[in-house]
Amino acid sequence: MSPVLSISRRLRSTPFTRRVTEAGVKGYTVYNHMLLPTMFESIEADYHHLKRDVQIWDVAVQRQVEVRGRDAAKLIQMLTPRSLKKMADDQCYYIPVVDETGGMLNDPVAVRHSEDRWWISIADSDLLYWIKGLARGMNLRVDVFEPDVSPLAIQGPKSNDLMARLFGEDIRDLRFFRHRKIEFNGRQHTIARSGFSVQGGFEIYVEGTDQGEPIWDALFEAGQGLNVRAGCPNLIERIEGGLLSYGNDMTRDNTPFEAGLGKFCKGAASKDCIGADALRQDLEHGPKRQVRGLAIAGEAVPPCQDLWPVFVNDQGVGHVSSAAWSPDLLTNVAIAMIDRAHWDVGTHVTVQTPSGPRDAEVRALPFI
Amino acid sequence: MSPVLSISRRLRSTPFTRRVTEAGVKGYTVYNHMLLPTMFESIEADYHHLKRDVQIWDVAVQRQVEVRGRDAAKLIQMLTPRSLKKMADDQCYYIPVVDETGGMLNDPVAVRHSEDRWWISIADSDLLYWIKGLARGMNLRVDVFEPDVSPLAIQGPKSNDLMARLFGEDIRDLRFFRHRKIEFNGRQHTIARSGFSVQGGFEIYVEGTDQGEPIWDALFEAGQGLNVRAGCPNLIERIEGGLLSYGNDMTRDNTPFEAGLGKFCKGAASKDCIGADALRQDLEHGPKRQVRGLAIAGEAVPPCQDLWPVFVNDQGVGHVSSAAWSPDLLTNVAIAMIDRAHWDVGTHVTVQTPSGPRDAEVRALPFI
Repeated sequence: MSPVLSISRRLRSTPFTRRVTEAGVKGYTVYNHMLLPTMFESIEADYHHLKRDVQIWDVAVQRQVEVRGRDAAKLIQMLTPRSLKKMADDQCYYIPVVDETGGMLNDPVAVRHSEDRWWISIADSDLLYWIKGLARGMNLRVDVFEPDVSPLAIQGPKSNDLMARLFGEDIRDLRFFRHRKIEFNGRQHTIARSGFSVQGGFEIYVEGTDQGEPIWDALFEAGQGLNVRAGCPNLIERIEGGLLSYGNDMTRDNTPFEAGLGKFCKGAASKDCIGADALRQDLEHGPKRQVRGLAIAGEAVPPCQDLWPVFVNDQGVGHVSSAAWSPDLLTNVAIAMIDRAHWDVGTHVTVQTPSGPRDAEVRALPFI
Repeated sequence: MSPVLSISRRLRSTPFTRRVTEAGVKGYTVYNHMLLPTMFESIEADYHHLKRDVQIWDVAVQRQVEVRGRDAAKLIQMLTPRSLKKMADDQCYYIPVVDETGGMLNDPVAVRHSEDRWWISIADSDLLYWIKGLARGMNLRVDVFEPDVSPLAIQGPKSNDLMARLFGEDIRDLRFFRHRKIEFNGRQHTIARSGFSVQGGFEIYVEGTDQGEPIWDALFEAGQGLNVRAGCPNLIERIEGGLLSYGNDMTRDNTPFEAGLGKFCKGAASKDCIGADALRQDLEHGPKRQVRGLAIAGEAVPPCQDLWPVFVNDQGVGHVSSAAWSPDLLTNVAIAMIDRAHWDVGTHVTVQTPSGPRDAEVRALPFI
């Protein structure tokens, strides 16, 4: 049986928590010291609905680290091996952030507003502390703080229709990982074509806690007839789509190359990145292990709450970090870190699950 | 109804989680990306038992940041306004950690092993990132990392008896916030007289995940006849005892003076601390608001999941951050941040709780 979550002020509620509660949220996780819904009807029912209709997600847990000032661009380039030189003021970049050992500290989305004003939309670690520490230690001319900004995601195949109803037809033209300003209720908000699903959609960076419920309500009103529902990042869909979760599928113990993010680590930026030297080995010779998909045979696996060892002939060759039954693929789908000698697609392995050993096969990510 | 907690690898289990589950844990919170039990029998039953007998607590969430190297002592003094000059190699110090604005980033316990080797036993924020960021930004000669160390607390009036049975009578002589090495199972562990209750007790810094269950089991075996049980930090007992919880009762928005920790912020250290300039105002003139106890009238209040506003004559004068019914004091006890003009003990205020407005009275902390 699942234990209950004891909620206190330390687990921050969001501008949308009241609406999420009214919508019948059944499970939470905690992410950046804040409540993140995990389930409404059921993970499977939410999954089918997400792939068919449109959902509104409270992803306020994607807290923003705002970096402002003359040294902002310089500081942000130090954080990541990805080159930011060609980044425009309306772009979002997925940036692996590494320390001096090349270990990943976070995998945020950088939102560039201008040369001297950025948001870093973070995964689950206090990246604010790393950025503030560097800025202070180097006496950089920047302010680093968490603004009152809370993302709300609109995800699913009908997300274009829903957004066009509320914000006008122009919104359909917004390109992937580009952002623009929209006005709502007399206030400006940033909106991007992005989100933690592969069904398409948008994220509204809602400015001002007091604006959360008005925007939530307006989206549901505009969505009448579109079967819009409250939703949340879906475990099954994100594994099928090969979307990694920081803290689950990679940690400080992994380089971006191990996380399959090597394409973001090449080129001119490397020398400015704090982890440049440490990443050279992986850059030149490839990582010793890397994330892969695994199709795990048999009935639905239990929830993956700890790493599950992966074997080939009784030799440990990696571990599974996320797993779920896929109703559409009719197999268990999983994300695993696999040693180089065994990572080829099609390799047969054994996974030690809590319900016993299972046959599995290495697959490319994404599954779909 | 309380929502369930969806557990994934990202919410790390501890070396004791299996034993905690076997002991019938009923609730969890998440703390430093890790599972922290909140309840076994019930919060009230756990409270009575803690005050009468002895409990074993999985507080592995108190992660250690190890700082090693020639600049270790210098770096740690930069973190806090508390002077560390007179600290001995067997001492633990409670140190408010502040940024350049004087805002609290954490309230850890510093464990000094030697001039160039320290543990910082952290509250709920990734202080590792701040310390690493500073060290990197300033090119300090230190290594900063999270070792495989997991605290296990033994708390309650019978904790001396239990510890003496397992580790020998000498352990009774260990002074408050001092530490020493003990040997168990052929391995060395650090043990301190400390813990997040006011019932007395110890914390064993268990070195090595594989040592968690052997120590847990040995403590329960030694505790036969002492009514030893699995427990956890208790909401009621810690409010009665005036123990603040970072993230609940104070955050980055508060200075240590506001948190009532002014006694740690005086003296010679200030100039070396990053927040020294920012703290000068509070140091010289006192803070504008400060934590206080509140006794809230009427029946048991609901759980405090968000700040509750505090009023005097319809004017906002602060907020409650933690509250619970005290079976021993027969009133609701609460921790609140109260403006200077209204913080005198005995002041009558009104608290806006989810179950309506309540009369309350300002009290000194601790209540007991």
